[in-house]
Amino acid sequence: MIIQPIIDLAAIFARKGIKNAILSPGSRCAPLTLAFVRHPDIHCRTISDERSAAFVALGMAQQLKKPVVLVCSSGTAALNYAPAIAEAFFQQIPLIVLTADRPPEWIDQWDGQTIRQQAIYGRHIKQSYDFPDHFGHPDITWHAHRIGNEAVNEATGFPAGPVHVNIPIREPFYPESQDEFDFNRPIPIVNKLESATHLSSSALANFKNELARFKRVVIIPGQQASHQHTLDLLNELATQHKVVIISDTISNMQSSNTITFHDQLLPVVDHGAFSPDLIISFGKSIISKPLKNFLRSSGAEHWHIQPAGYSPDTYQGLAKIIPSTAQEILRILVESTLTLDGEFHQRWHQADQAMERALKNTLEKAPFGEWKAIYNVLNHLPETSKLHLANSMAVRYVNFLGARKQEIICNRGTSGIDGSNSTAVGCTFTTKEFVTLITGDMAFFYDRNAFWHNYTTNNLRIILLNNHAGGIFRIINGPNKQPELEEFFETKQSLNAAHLAMDFGFGYLPVKSEEELDAALMDFYHPSVKPKIIEVFSDSAENTAILNTIKSNLRNFMDQ
Amino acid sequence: MIIQPIIDLAAIFARKGIKNAILSPGSRCAPLTLAFVRHPDIHCRTISDERSAAFVALGMAQQLKKPVVLVCSSGTAALNYAPAIAEAFFQQIPLIVLTADRPPEWIDQWDGQTIRQQAIYGRHIKQSYDFPDHFGHPDITWHAHRIGNEAVNEATGFPAGPVHVNIPIREPFYPESQDEFDFNRPIPIVNKLESATHLSSSALANFKNELARFKRVVIIPGQQASHQHTLDLLNELATQHKVVIISDTISNMQSSNTITFHDQLLPVVDHGAFSPDLIISFGKSIISKPLKNFLRSSGAEHWHIQPAGYSPDTYQGLAKIIPSTAQEILRILVESTLTLDGEFHQRWHQADQAMERALKNTLEKAPFGEWKAIYNVLNHLPETSKLHLANSMAVRYVNFLGARKQEIICNRGTSGIDGSNSTAVGCTFTTKEFVTLITGDMAFFYDRNAFWHNYTTNNLRIILLNNHAGGIFRIINGPNKQPELEEFFETKQSLNAAHLAMDFGFGYLPVKSEEELDAALMDFYHPSVKPKIIEVFSDSAENTAILNTIKSNLRNFMDQ
Repeated sequence: MIIQPIIDLAAIFARKGIKNAILSPGSRCAPLTLAFVRHPDIHCRTISDERSAAFVALGMAQQLKKPVVLVCSSGTAALNYAPAIAEAFFQQIPLIVLTADRPPEWIDQWDGQTIRQQAIYGRHIKQSYDFPDHFGHPDITWHAHRIGNEAVNEATGFPAGPVHVNIPIREPFYPESQDEFDFNRPIPIVNKLESATHLSSSALANFKNELARFKRVVIIPGQQASHQHTLDLLNELATQHKVVIISDTISNMQSSNTITFHDQLLPVVDHGAFSPDLIISFGKSIISKPLKNFLRSSGAEHWHIQPAGYSPDTYQGLAKIIPSTAQEILRILVESTLTLDGEFHQRWHQADQAMERALKNTLEKAPFGEWKAIYNVLNHLPETSKLHLANSMAVRYVNFLGARKQEIICNRGTSGIDGSNSTAVGCTFTTKEFVTLITGDMAFFYDRNAFWHNYTTNNLRIILLNNHAGGIFRIINGPNKQPELEEFFETKQSLNAAHLAMDFGFGYLPVKSEEELDAALMDFYHPSVKPKIIEVFSDSAENTAILNTIKSNLRNFMDQ
Repeated sequence: MIIQPIIDLAAIFARKGIKNAILSPGSRCAPLTLAFVRHPDIHCRTISDERSAAFVALGMAQQLKKPVVLVCSSGTAALNYAPAIAEAFFQQIPLIVLTADRPPEWIDQWDGQTIRQQAIYGRHIKQSYDFPDHFGHPDITWHAHRIGNEAVNEATGFPAGPVHVNIPIREPFYPESQDEFDFNRPIPIVNKLESATHLSSSALANFKNELARFKRVVIIPGQQASHQHTLDLLNELATQHKVVIISDTISNMQSSNTITFHDQLLPVVDHGAFSPDLIISFGKSIISKPLKNFLRSSGAEHWHIQPAGYSPDTYQGLAKIIPSTAQEILRILVESTLTLDGEFHQRWHQADQAMERALKNTLEKAPFGEWKAIYNVLNHLPETSKLHLANSMAVRYVNFLGARKQEIICNRGTSGIDGSNSTAVGCTFTTKEFVTLITGDMAFFYDRNAFWHNYTTNNLRIILLNNHAGGIFRIINGPNKQPELEEFFETKQSLNAAHLAMDFGFGYLPVKSEEELDAALMDFYHPSVKPKIIEVFSDSAENTAILNTIKSNLRNFMDQ
């Protein structure tokens, strides 16, 4: 018989609103597998490569804004979860990781699939729990139930994140056929109520007073999920000319009222005229390196809004940590008498519009390559599609091309290339809208096991930019001057996706020119039974040459 | 300019005899990459998927018995190394893991590719070092040099294992073209001399006295590398009828003088007549579960030989830990007056020979399936080929089939399926002999990125047993009775290796019958420019049925 506290774990999670689990096959974890699979309110899927399984769970939890459960067997399975757990930790996505383990007496005794699993995720986990391995005293069952409750409360409390429960299990692992799983026993449920954090009235008064000191205020929204009310407030502020909003693509806070061509603009304008005296930020990281460097060298004071938790000093000018929500603070700004220096708002927006025209003009004349391909793809993208962007070049390309209406998702917690496909696959499990993944060949083939499972992802659309190498190394300054460039930095690779598409029955459209791309895009977003891939072939060296021409055109244009 | 202490690190490693490094591409690690690539005595290869890269390094170090260096960039790259590092830790294989990191002031500041890398491998590493991030005092350079020396000494000291050096690096990452790398500066080299551990004379006298108490002595060699002198001593002991040697395939200590059919024998014989009163073991884990269970329930006293380090109580009867070498203790046994109970030696060997005949007889009549396929493959295998066995079924099949002359390699440190291909690829980089990998479909496709690089592995031969599932779950008792068997345990998967072979230009021979297999084996071991795969298709349910018939035949045979 399966021990009841493990069955209770599934019951507690379900009663606390969890609806999804991603399992990986194993025997030690069989009691967990069966408890979750047999629970009527939890939808389980099984994915064999644990590295991919964890990123799939992350892709789901990111959308659902609720924890997804991961279940794996003992041994290195748990370690294969580690990259996605670090990503979840820094991107603040709730996951509940359940790792089956041998009981303590068998650790380090040279039995199979036995490693040291307690607290195995080190400093990349919100909390690690050791589930009891025996239930000889009633208090131990109370402890097991508490762990179940605490795991969910901790994973979802702000800032959300992954938690780990290591679960030692002795044989037998499998129930007899007559054994029933009872999910309806009375079990304690501990719910944490929602809270709101506000500034105290004196802090608020002080905040308003201090605000009057500044005349060049920029708002920098960091990575976050789409949130219409926040965007409305930003638009209102911008319309009032009270602030300049500079928004990266991963902020999901872009509009015609925000600066979005800063990546290209900042290298070609006079920083003095554009420098802020106050930076207000909320959300997590930004992607634009020119923007980071500009803000860091601006000498501006930085105020960061965040309901709770540690606040980093991203722009080297952190002065106030504001424990509140962006909405509350933006509302205060809307109602404030804040006024900017006469030209500051106009200067930024005129430059941004000029850059937009210059870029459009330049790109339309540019020879076909990755830039042009992305530009055309984005013009075809349905507004309702989720847009997953892989590290490292795909997200930069899109950031370069201005405001997007689609929801943008990208693994910028750790900025790895190791789970982009899987994260996008996880996303498809949560929506009937299209999920478009734009990725380079290194990220795509690295995570090819994302597709190695038996579940439908028919709403997935992949734009694969294949230049047969890590093209970023040719673009950044440094590696491109080393004789080791091709073997040890770019790392030439010869794969294309034709065989992968055959293996998984995906629609496959290879393109080498603008005409082929446009033809491929024509019915790319027609509904289909299977996912589709457009593979855009280009040459890494040519892409770099085109980029350099574009940059020099833009510089000339702005100089005029 | 690249900082000199990083160049010195390559120089120290080279002077201490390290000749190989596996790099993964990145920018933060560029100073390390260039230092190792430009060192004239270190051979570097680059592999993009860090999970695979680390197993490749492990596969090399396993053969070379010297550390291989791993170099990766900051972020989750380091976490992708973790499964192979745990395997190296438990299999006691020396690796030196160098992870580039941001300098401390930028950790947790939401910069890209930044995680918490210090001591990131937790309890699966022999030692973790934090390399200095600045060199403002001469003592700091001395510290950096010491870390280089200590890392090699620690990785290679018994028991060998992985060590980690986390290396914070500030920009610039790339040298100017006129910068020379000076590997010949005077740097301190600290060498640890070889030592030998022996029993004290009183312990030795006591050991000999105690030995006389026992009349049913078995020797259990655990996993270890081939070692002819040790095998010679075992053979001599067996010929003297002083002990019974029971040797799993992963022990590399099999011969016609050792028991090798124990996996099939123990379930069908009377344990009382076969039980030892003393178990002497050396090496690491064994694979046979029937043997483990038999020894644990035998009540025998267990003496384990190991020069140093923690000794597990694998058979639940540990009484003496003998800090010496197997060779020294076996020599003492050879020279001892140890005499077994009259029938004990004969009983084991007669049963083993009977089982060998029964098995041969049964297998030759068995319908074609995985068992038959492995049996035929092993009959064709060149004696000089290295034989890599994947977890979980491949290694069990081979263990079942008796003594092998080939060197057997298998990731039994953690018994994972996550790196078998890569470990075999690493092995091919160290030898001109054939390297044969026998693997199931789950392990094979899990680690398919093993082949995603630009290096020749022409001596690689792969036997892929494709039953489109994790067949072990149908064979072990428990999951085969659950309605969730196919989706959540076996995990049906539809891939075959045809497209993979095309992607990498491998020779590809799909077979579905004994005749096709024999034809494919005909020139399988002819030299070739590219690796070759024989993919043996079989049905998971049929394999199980055949296995059950074989087992029942064997039981009947032994009953006669």
